[in-house]
Amino acid sequence: MIQATVFQADDYGPWTVTPAPRPEMDLQILQSRLYAEIAGFVGDREGYAFYTRGDNVVGITNGIDRDAHERLQASLGNRYPVTVSVGIGAGETPATALSEASSQLRAAGSAQDETRTTICRGETLETETGEVTVGHFDIENATGRLTDRLDAFEAYTTIQQWYGTLARRLYSDHDALAFFVGGDNVVAVCPTLDRAIYHDVIEYVTDQTDVPFRVGVGTGTTAREAGMAAKHGLERGRERDRDVVLVDQPPTPSV
Amino acid sequence: MIQATVFQADDYGPWTVTPAPRPEMDLQILQSRLYAEIAGFVGDREGYAFYTRGDNVVGITNGIDRDAHERLQASLGNRYPVTVSVGIGAGETPATALSEASSQLRAAGSAQDETRTTICRGETLETETGEVTVGHFDIENATGRLTDRLDAFEAYTTIQQWYGTLARRLYSDHDALAFFVGGDNVVAVCPTLDRAIYHDVIEYVTDQTDVPFRVGVGTGTTAREAGMAAKHGLERGRERDRDVVLVDQPPTPSV
Amino acid sequence: MIQATVFQADDYGPWTVTPAPRPEMDLQILQSRLYAEIAGFVGDREGYAFYTRGDNVVGITNGIDRDAHERLQASLGNRYPVTVSVGIGAGETPATALSEASSQLRAAGSAQDETRTTICRGETLETETGEVTVGHFDIENATGRLTDRLDAFEAYTTIQQWYGTLARRLYSDHDALAFFVGGDNVVAVCPTLDRAIYHDVIEYVTDQTDVPFRVGVGTGTTAREAGMAAKHGLERGRERDRDVVLVDQPPTPSV
Amino acid sequence: MIQATVFQADDYGPWTVTPAPRPEMDLQILQSRLYAEIAGFVGDREGYAFYTRGDNVVGITNGIDRDAHERLQASLGNRYPVTVSVGIGAGETPATALSEASSQLRAAGSAQDETRTTICRGETLETETGEVTVGHFDIENATGRLTDRLDAFEAYTTIQQWYGTLARRLYSDHDALAFFVGGDNVVAVCPTLDRAIYHDVIEYVTDQTDVPFRVGVGTGTTAREAGMAAKHGLERGRERDRDVVLVDQPPTPSV
Repeated sequence: MIQATVFQADDYGPWTVTPAPRPEMDLQILQSRLYAEIAGFVGDREGYAFYTRGDNVVGITNGIDRDAHERLQASLGNRYPVTVSVGIGAGETPATALSEASSQLRAAGSAQDETRTTICRGETLETETGEVTVGHFDIENATGRLTDRLDAFEAYTTIQQWYGTLARRLYSDHDALAFFVGGDNVVAVCPTLDRAIYHDVIEYVTDQTDVPFRVGVGTGTTAREAGMAAKHGLERGRERDRDVVLVDQPPTPSV
Repeated sequence: MIQATVFQADDYGPWTVTPAPRPEMDLQILQSRLYAEIAGFVGDREGYAFYTRGDNVVGITNGIDRDAHERLQASLGNRYPVTVSVGIGAGETPATALSEASSQLRAAGSAQDETRTTICRGETLETETGEVTVGHFDIENATGRLTDRLDAFEAYTTIQQWYGTLARRLYSDHDALAFFVGGDNVVAVCPTLDRAIYHDVIEYVTDQTDVPFRVGVGTGTTAREAGMAAKHGLERGRERDRDVVLVDQPPTPSV
Repeated sequence: MIQATVFQADDYGPWTVTPAPRPEMDLQILQSRLYAEIAGFVGDREGYAFYTRGDNVVGITNGIDRDAHERLQASLGNRYPVTVSVGIGAGETPATALSEASSQLRAAGSAQDETRTTICRGETLETETGEVTVGHFDIENATGRLTDRLDAFEAYTTIQQWYGTLARRLYSDHDALAFFVGGDNVVAVCPTLDRAIYHDVIEYVTDQTDVPFRVGVGTGTTAREAGMAAKHGLERGRERDRDVVLVDQPPTPSV
Repeated sequence: MIQATVFQADDYGPWTVTPAPRPEMDLQILQSRLYAEIAGFVGDREGYAFYTRGDNVVGITNGIDRDAHERLQASLGNRYPVTVSVGIGAGETPATALSEASSQLRAAGSAQDETRTTICRGETLETETGEVTVGHFDIENATGRLTDRLDAFEAYTTIQQWYGTLARRLYSDHDALAFFVGGDNVVAVCPTLDRAIYHDVIEYVTDQTDVPFRVGVGTGTTAREAGMAAKHGLERGRERDRDVVLVDQPPTPSV
């Protein structure tokens, strides 16, 4: 079972243009800082948070209870000019968990409802029942193939197309949620999937985009545990030149 | 003429897995903070900076001289565990400027060259000769159409597909560089383009993605000046229900 | 029983002048950010952290185990150019706890020992046995008396003299640790003290410095719980014009 | 001539207890971040900013015009839950400049005037006429004498007493403004003073506090230039075992 959280800035769009449009760099800094706060808080509790739209941040929050979510909301409210509402959901797959979290949030009112402020809705999971699988993907020799060869925008759009194709395939066929995390890295939160499925996904996406890549897959009771195992799997795949490495247990403490 | 800068973390990939993979949330926080620093510094000098890949940040830096770039590099070196190299380029269009900036950086060595540290290469533009055009795009009624209706991941991937289609069209046909800046907003740095071209681009992208959107277009001697004008244009388009609004001068001081 | 932690940047002094003196504002920003990280991490776990010397930060860490301390150290090491060592101590009073924490750190090597890196030493307290008392002091009508009347430096030095006199008295006679936390506020971590003692301290310090002030005193199992109660006590003292208000239980949830 | 700025958070005290007292660590993080922003902005323009009371930050702002001050205020207003007002003053000495800056601010209304928001008052200096002298003081062998020998609180209070004695002497007799900047370091912004005066001050303060220390003194058109020269002087004093080293020109570029 997966627990997901949607963090949504309250009435943010209107705020960015009231009383007049605010300078873009101020908004970018605000969004980056707000995300870093959420990532720090969630990460500190073994979860993962992904930037996505900046005003909507997606968390995988197994093991983080409602009280912790509310504490984060209170702390952000004490230090930022905008407040954040929260929807929490649990599900058999990452996609169903996030869908439930999104429903909870929508049920509390529109993202641009002026009266919806610092709402926290939804049910958290019993810690024991949770299990997270993370697939950490990266491109084979991205530096030689892209960074050192193309210009910065071409490399970026090539990676974005690869990411988009990968993310849509994982979502539509496998209920997995994939996020671009910078460089040439994609972190996907997945249900339990056979090794063959990862091979198929890689084959399909490489066919479509002409980008060869690998994946390390790890499982754990939290996103962090699963993600660290996945990273070790990816390293092992690089050393042994294998496309898919599944890791059951993290080989070393994750600090 | 446009001046572009590529900010590239030195030997970052290897650092993230040495001596062992570092926790993903630590890396995400580091990348967000580093970006916020660059955005703050560049923004404070009327430029724009875009996150793109996190370890590669793209700046539109008209009016920012080499000395300022080096000062930013020194300051980051005093406060972060990684250093940043810089390539600067000037060109008739955003695409040619960025291409030149990327060439300068590559000529200094690979992104994973251990001996390439805090390099600054390339020529800046005379301030007087610079002119920047910014198109600020957003989706019509994105809150009602996407945020309040779809789940957070579906809304995100819909926007990413829209952005990807828009960015590729603007780049391949018009030498413009478009960046997703959160929410449902895309900021594109463009050459001088006719109003008809913006209409064509909107028509094409809406056809492909089924997402209706608008643009405000502004011009100025710096990215900030152009970007503020574009934001005012977008507001005007929203009020008057027009798809494309070109603004020559920012209507109010940009602070 | 109190648990205290000393967070000490490793070999920081030499780093600030190697290879040449680093700009002061870069150092000030680095120190502020590092402190904010520690305060965030400790505060999130119901503790308190005080800036003191910037390269030495003092924490009241009841309820925070060794594993958490090590995780903070690892996370800082992933995001800052300097590492941090930690000494933990427990004691009957704040002063004895901090003394033990300092001994632990010193036993691991000098602050300028190049080979002492990311050390964590000392014993933490069983959570159940902990009790923290906080006295929150502020000056009567500081705005009218100081901020709006004196210049910024005079107001500052007046407050610093008041703080110094108060801190030394509380430390030498009562084993309490007092910290200036900005504005006209001093937060002291105290043993259990009679109301009469607070009156005596106020009388003595007001005699010496000619600054009238109040205190709210709270007790709890963590610094945060005690500190929130103390703040409520101070508010009550302000409303009812009383110098010393002792609060046993926080009147409202502390989020 | 010196230009000083007082940055004062608007109506901050009441905000910290409305609707109920806010958690102390949230306030400490907010204050640290706000200070880091001001230090970054001012430092980037060759000025210095000092934390002092957190809600009142003192800047030495030679070369920074009114427009820049207002831009900082706007940017803070876009990213923080509190606004900041500004008083600017020029004077023959640091003390007179700060006094004028404080008067300007007070003339705009009380620090707790709810209607005083984001005010900017006072006259800036013509750049050419400015000259800043900085004395950078530190304690001889502070690590061996204090950090490695006393506990963290004793070391801190010893340094605070030394700092307080030094700051009051410099202010009352020489119109200089001294600030503790962490570790065992004090940065003083001074008028032009003879070498003999520095010797006298050191002798007096060492007599009073039993703490031996040195000073490097530098002069420049900005605080940064003067401060970098002072740091080099201090290094030279350490190498040659001299108490006072005056430096006229910074020996190396200050980046």
